[in-house]
Amino acid sequence: MFPTILDLSSLKATYAKGATPLDLVEAVLARIAASKDPAIFITVTPAETLRAEARALLARAPEANSLPLWGVPFAVKDNIDVAGLPTTAACPAFAYDPAADATVVARLRAAGALVIGKTNLDQFATGLNGTRSPYGAPRSVFDAAYVSGGSSSGSAVAVAAGLASFALGTDTAGSGRVPAAFNNIVGIKPTPGLVPNVGVVPACRSVDVVTVFAATVGDGTAVRRVMDGYDAGDPFSRRAEPATLPSAGLRIGVLDGPEREFFGNAAYEALYDTAIERAKALGATIVPFDYVPFRQAAELLYNGPWVAERMAAVKDFIATHAEDFDPTVRQIIEGASAYDAVDAFEGRYRLEALRQKTLVEWAKVDMLMLPTSPTTYTVEEMLAEPILRNAHFGRYTNFANLFGYAAIAVPAGFDKGGHLPAGVTLFGPAFSDDALAPFADALHRALASGMGIDRTAVLPEASKVAAAEDGLVPILVVGAHLTGMPLNHELTAPGGRLVRRCRTAGDYRLYVLPATVPPKPGLVRDPGYRGEGLEVELWRIPPAAFGRFVQNIPAPLGIGKVELEDGSRVSGFLCEAHALEGAEEITVLGGWRAYVDQLRAAE
Amino acid sequence: MFPTILDLSSLKATYAKGATPLDLVEAVLARIAASKDPAIFITVTPAETLRAEARALLARAPEANSLPLWGVPFAVKDNIDVAGLPTTAACPAFAYDPAADATVVARLRAAGALVIGKTNLDQFATGLNGTRSPYGAPRSVFDAAYVSGGSSSGSAVAVAAGLASFALGTDTAGSGRVPAAFNNIVGIKPTPGLVPNVGVVPACRSVDVVTVFAATVGDGTAVRRVMDGYDAGDPFSRRAEPATLPSAGLRIGVLDGPEREFFGNAAYEALYDTAIERAKALGATIVPFDYVPFRQAAELLYNGPWVAERMAAVKDFIATHAEDFDPTVRQIIEGASAYDAVDAFEGRYRLEALRQKTLVEWAKVDMLMLPTSPTTYTVEEMLAEPILRNAHFGRYTNFANLFGYAAIAVPAGFDKGGHLPAGVTLFGPAFSDDALAPFADALHRALASGMGIDRTAVLPEASKVAAAEDGLVPILVVGAHLTGMPLNHELTAPGGRLVRRCRTAGDYRLYVLPATVPPKPGLVRDPGYRGEGLEVELWRIPPAAFGRFVQNIPAPLGIGKVELEDGSRVSGFLCEAHALEGAEEITVLGGWRAYVDQLRAAE
Repeated sequence: MFPTILDLSSLKATYAKGATPLDLVEAVLARIAASKDPAIFITVTPAETLRAEARALLARAPEANSLPLWGVPFAVKDNIDVAGLPTTAACPAFAYDPAADATVVARLRAAGALVIGKTNLDQFATGLNGTRSPYGAPRSVFDAAYVSGGSSSGSAVAVAAGLASFALGTDTAGSGRVPAAFNNIVGIKPTPGLVPNVGVVPACRSVDVVTVFAATVGDGTAVRRVMDGYDAGDPFSRRAEPATLPSAGLRIGVLDGPEREFFGNAAYEALYDTAIERAKALGATIVPFDYVPFRQAAELLYNGPWVAERMAAVKDFIATHAEDFDPTVRQIIEGASAYDAVDAFEGRYRLEALRQKTLVEWAKVDMLMLPTSPTTYTVEEMLAEPILRNAHFGRYTNFANLFGYAAIAVPAGFDKGGHLPAGVTLFGPAFSDDALAPFADALHRALASGMGIDRTAVLPEASKVAAAEDGLVPILVVGAHLTGMPLNHELTAPGGRLVRRCRTAGDYRLYVLPATVPPKPGLVRDPGYRGEGLEVELWRIPPAAFGRFVQNIPAPLGIGKVELEDGSRVSGFLCEAHALEGAEEITVLGGWRAYVDQLRAAE
Repeated sequence: MFPTILDLSSLKATYAKGATPLDLVEAVLARIAASKDPAIFITVTPAETLRAEARALLARAPEANSLPLWGVPFAVKDNIDVAGLPTTAACPAFAYDPAADATVVARLRAAGALVIGKTNLDQFATGLNGTRSPYGAPRSVFDAAYVSGGSSSGSAVAVAAGLASFALGTDTAGSGRVPAAFNNIVGIKPTPGLVPNVGVVPACRSVDVVTVFAATVGDGTAVRRVMDGYDAGDPFSRRAEPATLPSAGLRIGVLDGPEREFFGNAAYEALYDTAIERAKALGATIVPFDYVPFRQAAELLYNGPWVAERMAAVKDFIATHAEDFDPTVRQIIEGASAYDAVDAFEGRYRLEALRQKTLVEWAKVDMLMLPTSPTTYTVEEMLAEPILRNAHFGRYTNFANLFGYAAIAVPAGFDKGGHLPAGVTLFGPAFSDDALAPFADALHRALASGMGIDRTAVLPEASKVAAAEDGLVPILVVGAHLTGMPLNHELTAPGGRLVRRCRTAGDYRLYVLPATVPPKPGLVRDPGYRGEGLEVELWRIPPAAFGRFVQNIPAPLGIGKVELEDGSRVSGFLCEAHALEGAEEITVLGGWRAYVDQLRAAE
């Protein structure tokens, strides 16, 4: 009844055909029971609880798909509070029963989503590989010898294995991106501050971000929008205007020269190169950039004072429970004692100096595209060198939250034998989350590598992310603002763009207004009249420029809605009726340009 | 030949009458030689050097006032590099000869200004009182028993005594504001990041700001604009759009209840109250706000991990020269050893949590007005309790740079005997520097307390700061957008403000449009008609909101220009003529509100 991968569009279609959330609950419970990976969940929601929640949803919103996430099953990383289930952060001695849902969980539940369980993670979200947990190491869904990636290990595997439609992760160094790459799914990493962290066990509080694993960029973005929004309870929560990116002619920064490092994994390097080719084929301009300042910032996260944030998060607990920690995690956190407050501030100076260097690179590009992880390892390999090999995974991720970027990780195909997947991540400036999504989605769709374990699945059209609104507003011009006419600069100067020449509906008449400088027409609708329509131009200009534009229009003209020949209505010029008394009608000429041409010819 | 106070307008006028920078140099040298305060300067520019610079200026720009700061003498706090003069930070053992000017000094010199010397300061800018220097304690220009304020002590006194037109300070806790208050001058404290710190000895690098002391807000703002601008060499340098403030109807936050603390100085409290009265008289709305989160942030600067920044600035030097420090300064800096990196991050969490609380207060006000210092002390009193009494000076200053605000300190008059001056400071959000200036200037002019030691000087008209454009655009509403009507939220939600109720010109008619939801009127001009005008409301809304507003207006309505009874024309609602066929005319009712009332009465 339900598809292998529970992406939002397919699930919605299944519900539309008559399946209910009660059916879904049984299907998910059966899949979890049948799963061959015993390490995905730390706590599965008890079957009776899940059934009760499905019934409660049906009572609250009986109609299928009547809430944004109606009956959508999701998994929650076990460092994010879900009321009714313990939070462990993968440390049994740390476990507590939260009184309330984390803000993000509450928002998702209010939108109709169902929590199916709490997922495994690298303990206290300290790691990028998924092996640092007493609850076992989840495995890549494509080869159980290989790590799942971490720290949001169980969440990524749950989505890739078809146990959940989406799952929440957290991302400090790259934990919301690396496991997406290793499981052929998407990781949405919001701009720090966009999604509140209330009810999340901190790793590095100043750079922690709640993330979404999903089958498609569209799914992940839709979920992120439900979680978005200021919460004063999170000191780092921010309100900000969304940042925009060009909707065409994107310049994408890529690795170059000695900064291309894949730790010997030629297959992953080749997959990165094919991703670059796909980006090119989608119309992007590829721009090699200098990764050095980004790498140097990335190195600060573990080899700098930021490890003290990890200590700050658990200092009372570690004082009495040091023996209860994973030995590698403990070693990392105890590294905090090497840093005093002077080091902490000097770390910040270093980061801000590197930020200035990155601005030189950002001047060349609109977004960055990097390998999500340059290589992968078996669980055995990882355990043999747990710090060094973990650091390899973070080579191209650790800088993102320190600099406050938005990022989206998408699949990049499978290595030569079609065996293990890799990924690439797109990075944009702070609050470019929505603006990154259309290209990330297009890049993913161009790959055609399925979704998670279903490598033949076709990405549903319904989840496609529409090309970003560039924020420009349409305005129809009739006379002196037409291309080549005296006031056209009022459209071009603020960055306006001509969309197309077109015609109004047939019931408009055109007049020459007496005594206007420069000469201007008056456009008037006459519902009884049946003409040919008048030639006009449709432009798009920035909203503030549009506001100024309207402010500067002198009487008797104004801006209202004009109907086009295709029946659409857009903002365009109107004229007060009284001004037309004694005005010459030129409707028969078909437009203002013809009138001006006639005047010139007569000169 | 030169006026007592060398404000920019008076100096420019003197030059225009024929005086030259060579005359100025001699006058300034004579004034310095005659000064009764031996502690103002650490290094005076050698006379021959100064004369040579004046000659060089005349060679480069022979015409009077042909550069923005042509022949303007300024003093530089001795923690800011000036090539050719040593930098001491008021610690002789620390002295070095800088290879280059600080960025700000280079920009000011390029604009024609002349460095007359390096001024005394609280050692390493650690203090707000001016007594912590081996070069002596500069004194208030009004009573040599009293402190000058610090740390930019010599700079403030140099301007107030007429030795320089302006002077550079630095401000971490309040060093660019407190000494302005104690010397009857203006202190301009830019938003952190607006003015680059390259070539400045750090105090707390993440919150240090170069400031300007000047005779008027106009002078200080003009100088600040010369210093502004991104410099990649300063890790904290930022590019940002200027923030705006309303140009009318300003809401000003003031102290209230137990947060009013003047440490027994009733005269200073009374001066604060008269400043509030002046603000009211200028049309501001006075809004008591909760100072608690600001005070709690202020306390972090000295009683929190930020002291480690002071150690970071001098750690190599103090390791070998601890005995060369002022004992109080040394005690403060050595306090850094109490803090580890965990404390540093926890301090930041606390600050960000307090920031969220301040947002609740900022929702009520456009700017804050606080006492610059709640009291003052004699040098003797200060030396008796050097930490506690210094902290009193910082009661209303220390939070500003931690939160990234702009601030302008202006005089607030003299205490009862006309003896010692006090000040008030206006605070605005980040990058509101230009937006704060008009009101700060108006408040200063309304006081009429002269400039510096010249208590009878009249502030020159030429230095007046023009009222800022707040960027809001006017819009006239007629029907469903009136106050209390169903669509009024479209004006209030984006921050629109009601300007006034008013009437249209007499030749407009009003109709009820058939079949609109909610019911809407049509306003139409009929040049032959002579009525009473129709009741409407004038609002002002942000330009982008205006753009969206116009986009959302459905046909047959639009936005054109409407003439008011006073003959002015503003953007307002128009209606297409064809939509009025068969519409009920309600002109006789005088407005839409009367029509709605009539409908209600009929129900």
